[in-house]
Amino acid sequence: MSVRAEGTAVEPLRFEDGALLVLDQLALPAEERWIRCETVEQVADCIRTLAVRGAPAIGLAAAYALALAEDRASAAELLRSTRPTAVNLAWALEQCRDALDPVQVARRLHSEQRDADRRLSALGADLFGDGTRALTHCNTGALATGGYGTACGVLRAAWERGRLAEVWVGETRPLLQGARLTAWELRQAGIPHRVVADSAAGSLMAQGRVDRVVVGADRIAANGDVANKVGTYPLAVLADRHGVPFYVAAPVSTIDAATPDGSAIPIEERDPGEIVAEGEAFNPAFDVTPAELVTAIVTEAGVLEPPYPDSIARVLAA
Amino acid sequence: MSVRAEGTAVEPLRFEDGALLVLDQLALPAEERWIRCETVEQVADCIRTLAVRGAPAIGLAAAYALALAEDRASAAELLRSTRPTAVNLAWALEQCRDALDPVQVARRLHSEQRDADRRLSALGADLFGDGTRALTHCNTGALATGGYGTACGVLRAAWERGRLAEVWVGETRPLLQGARLTAWELRQAGIPHRVVADSAAGSLMAQGRVDRVVVGADRIAANGDVANKVGTYPLAVLADRHGVPFYVAAPVSTIDAATPDGSAIPIEERDPGEIVAEGEAFNPAFDVTPAELVTAIVTEAGVLEPPYPDSIARVLAA
Repeated sequence: MSVRAEGTAVEPLRFEDGALLVLDQLALPAEERWIRCETVEQVADCIRTLAVRGAPAIGLAAAYALALAEDRASAAELLRSTRPTAVNLAWALEQCRDALDPVQVARRLHSEQRDADRRLSALGADLFGDGTRALTHCNTGALATGGYGTACGVLRAAWERGRLAEVWVGETRPLLQGARLTAWELRQAGIPHRVVADSAAGSLMAQGRVDRVVVGADRIAANGDVANKVGTYPLAVLADRHGVPFYVAAPVSTIDAATPDGSAIPIEERDPGEIVAEGEAFNPAFDVTPAELVTAIVTEAGVLEPPYPDSIARVLAA
Repeated sequence: MSVRAEGTAVEPLRFEDGALLVLDQLALPAEERWIRCETVEQVADCIRTLAVRGAPAIGLAAAYALALAEDRASAAELLRSTRPTAVNLAWALEQCRDALDPVQVARRLHSEQRDADRRLSALGADLFGDGTRALTHCNTGALATGGYGTACGVLRAAWERGRLAEVWVGETRPLLQGARLTAWELRQAGIPHRVVADSAAGSLMAQGRVDRVVVGADRIAANGDVANKVGTYPLAVLADRHGVPFYVAAPVSTIDAATPDGSAIPIEERDPGEIVAEGEAFNPAFDVTPAELVTAIVTEAGVLEPPYPDSIARVLAA
């Protein structure tokens, strides 16, 4: 089965014949393997193990999963518990809660995500000058959203307009979403890129070899603090030191008005075994970048600029 | 054959029966395997592949290798070319150049390294308050120096004095010297530690969970700029932002008076295959931390403080 559903975009999820098909992102890029989920528990496992990951994509997976549920309230509780940081999961479940047909709602959310990705990607590309060398982290492409991508979507849109020279891809330890997934998506799109150790971003910026940092988000607080894959915060600090614009690209659904600031965002701790085979390790999956380090938040409803409490409040009210 | 030559310290090198025995650090910690080198080329291979690594240890390996050489000038040239960043390699070769018996000189350098490590470790431990939670990067222990260790030596000395609560060990991508080697050494010394992804250092510092950063050095320029394992510079920038003291621990032989500043330090680029199995990657092995971010440089001749051109000049003149 091909993973390219429309044009060159990969599709992480498909709902067919009463089952949710999940493209196993743990097996990528070595193998394109689909996991057929016929129960909510199977989808929850896929989310927990990161077979499907990326804040928008796990929201969609959870929405589709409700269609497999006998007891929708229990199912929603199980799904919400799989990963605590990304707000999209709770948001998507909320959208489907009272739906007569969850699949119909999930398909609508999926379609809206594609539209949002396209719009925010175009808005983000407007921020790129000619010959931009961008650095990104983790995976925020079609695999992560079910659409065109967020930060990766911005890179694709900039590339299509001839404004992108090259992408530095942070490998993204411990699970290498950058080296495995982003490099794979960029290769398919024909975008020049080089993978680097996450810790090489510092010297690249010090040498003036990075013009823009573009990342996604798992939750944006009302004050503009951003939770994203661990390693994002060091990139923001380095970008600040070197005067490199630091952009967060995310749909409005990633903004959580109920979270006042970053200190209120629960940070998932994952299995130390993802870091070391034996011995002691500490494995936080996300970190928080304070709003003061974020040059702009690129959403489908516009490019939000500081002061964020105001620009965020405006977009949520619209 | 045991790797513990004296007390609990591991020994990365032994010269016995006319051959240099190199503890294969690529096989650690899974296997304690020794490589028997009877030619200069074999030692050069061990240095190039990182079977032996760490600035002081590769200096000692090169010094011992001269004893295996028929043409000492060619041998020195070959050995010097293996790794360009660490100045200790050239320094140790220079010490042996005109020796009647290179082994005797190498053994003296080895013994002096042990003494220097002990002294600088004690001086570094003086900088620790009670209950210090320290973060380190790469491996700077006995494996890296042939002695007690530099940054790791400081940690051991602080632990022996009861001042160290815990060590955060950056795994050190791509070759995981932190996760493989430092964690192994700390475990043997009974020092509590947890391995983290390199990019987790940012949130640890933001949460106030790091009291000191202590790293080694591959070359220190006359102005105090420090070349060390890639990822050191981001740690220094983060430490600066969070008011965490950032210490560099290294013997005086790591200071290169002939290198005016960091821009003159050649940065080794290693095989992209260390980062990705296929596809494009960029793999600088080191980065440069500017002197302004270094709280102190801990040497066997004293703790050097800013302004470095002055404190470094004084220690070199002594």
